[in-house]
Amino acid sequence: MSESEQNRRVVIAALPEDRLEPSNFAVEVGPLPEVGPDHVLCRTTAITIGAGQRAGLQGSASYAGAPEVGAVMGGSGLAEVVASGSADFAAGELVRATTGWQDYSVHRPESLAPVDRAVDPAHLLGPLGINGLTAYFGLFDVGGVEAGQTVVVSAAAGSVGHLVGQMAKAEGARVVGVAGSDHKCELLVDELGFDAAVNRRSDEFRAEFRAATPDRIDVYFDNTGGSILESALFRMAVGGRIVCCGVASQYDTASPSAGPRGVPGLLVNNRVRMQGFLVFDYEDRYDEARERIGGWIDAGRLQPRATVYEGLEAAPQAFVDLLAGTTIGTTVVTTT
Amino acid sequence: MSESEQNRRVVIAALPEDRLEPSNFAVEVGPLPEVGPDHVLCRTTAITIGAGQRAGLQGSASYAGAPEVGAVMGGSGLAEVVASGSADFAAGELVRATTGWQDYSVHRPESLAPVDRAVDPAHLLGPLGINGLTAYFGLFDVGGVEAGQTVVVSAAAGSVGHLVGQMAKAEGARVVGVAGSDHKCELLVDELGFDAAVNRRSDEFRAEFRAATPDRIDVYFDNTGGSILESALFRMAVGGRIVCCGVASQYDTASPSAGPRGVPGLLVNNRVRMQGFLVFDYEDRYDEARERIGGWIDAGRLQPRATVYEGLEAAPQAFVDLLAGTTIGTTVVTTT
Repeated sequence: MSESEQNRRVVIAALPEDRLEPSNFAVEVGPLPEVGPDHVLCRTTAITIGAGQRAGLQGSASYAGAPEVGAVMGGSGLAEVVASGSADFAAGELVRATTGWQDYSVHRPESLAPVDRAVDPAHLLGPLGINGLTAYFGLFDVGGVEAGQTVVVSAAAGSVGHLVGQMAKAEGARVVGVAGSDHKCELLVDELGFDAAVNRRSDEFRAEFRAATPDRIDVYFDNTGGSILESALFRMAVGGRIVCCGVASQYDTASPSAGPRGVPGLLVNNRVRMQGFLVFDYEDRYDEARERIGGWIDAGRLQPRATVYEGLEAAPQAFVDLLAGTTIGTTVVTTT
Repeated sequence: MSESEQNRRVVIAALPEDRLEPSNFAVEVGPLPEVGPDHVLCRTTAITIGAGQRAGLQGSASYAGAPEVGAVMGGSGLAEVVASGSADFAAGELVRATTGWQDYSVHRPESLAPVDRAVDPAHLLGPLGINGLTAYFGLFDVGGVEAGQTVVVSAAAGSVGHLVGQMAKAEGARVVGVAGSDHKCELLVDELGFDAAVNRRSDEFRAEFRAATPDRIDVYFDNTGGSILESALFRMAVGGRIVCCGVASQYDTASPSAGPRGVPGLLVNNRVRMQGFLVFDYEDRYDEARERIGGWIDAGRLQPRATVYEGLEAAPQAFVDLLAGTTIGTTVVTTT
């Protein structure tokens, strides 16, 4: 057990009324949780944060359930087994766990998944974690992408987006990213192999978006909703698919925008399919996906990116930065 | 050939700027069209009008192509072969044809489909025509309806809607219609076997809609878009499907409404699929569909309804009435 036997916990101090601020959270220190029989005590080593978690702070609107002031902020990541009442896990093992934003957490063994310590944690938390699985099932199962097709992804430099684009390239598609800065667009094209990238904040966004999709769009992987979704709707090819993965444009605001024009008229005219999904529905196929994703990593076709914050106390700021669009790739907070 | 060798044609006199009026059309009389070799001259006996044709008068926004002042209004129906330069068709035969709103039209033989004179023309134009095929492929192929599921259909007393509901009942679903008057709602429940119907003009629409869908909605067959679509989005079951067939709420107006709230957020949370389709994409399966639909008619499980106008000159008024929601079932104009 670590030198400190205190459990740091980041709790919800106040629900955000508009944009999230670090002051919506507070750090508490308390005793370690008690471990019942058959349970496993874990010490968090790193957590990832996703923009979708902001929806969980909006109340009943989210699949994550209603948030509660005073509760430990939810989240998942990697943890080390500290004490185990289960024959399946031994102290010192590394596992995936829904740790929450805290140092110590207690789990039933069936909710933990062992991971290989030899694998780079950045890979475990990025392409082999929830972000990578989300990209994979969204792109291939929901989107049905095929070689030669045009894929557009929004929040393209983000945790899911930068993996979607690279997986689509690995499959032989033409890939266009939409991101929030010129810097991100350069990264996507120059370093991650995207065919084109468009800055959503450009005054000429519509014209640039049009120019980047001369053959229209077969698969639009939507992480944002809002105006980018609307622009994509007007560029869909006949038979195109819109993968509804997230609504980043709507999470961090008290005044969500109206629905996109073109729904449902353009869906009819162009026979477009628009489909929402949650990665958890694909749990029985995670192994299959991880095998394929691992192959791309080994072949150098998938370069994961991450923005790493050190220390559990940095988690609120990391979350605020993520929502403001200043992080790139997976947002990771290391806790040890 | 008929006693009159004149060809009456209803042409577009002026494109509508807001609501369609009969004055947007004019009736012209001219000579019969000339028949080239290998072509077939047909005399229209009846046409059907669909709300979606209004979109064709909005310009490039429609799959039907841009409209043109002075051109014969497009449309399809039944016609009798008057003179044939094709061995496949003989004078006197009854065919389906894209006649346009006129007495006489000339066709290449491959664009004509022979029909059985023994079958009730109301059936040929309704459940066995484009409306019935649209209901069939939308409900079963796009919607994937299964017995025991809840189906909601908008414009439920309309040409497609009244068939969707009855087909869904035949499949064993629970069916709720949304229609524009108490009279239509009574017809749906009392005569056509719907389980419930809600008047979209009711002051208590939301509460009544909610009460009519206690188990939420598995398949929403959307003929209207607009506020009914938005209401349905908030009632979809996990894994539900929205069949985007038409946008009747948006056709006959100069100021289309904003897109529906809940897109894409609710699609994600509830893993909902929303898909547009055009019946013409299913052309190679029309025979299969007609066989099944014919079976339901023979078994008394599908009662087609139609509102019939007599005389080609009545077509503009029929179209205006259809858009105003005063017709029930298939809107038919007989021309002989």
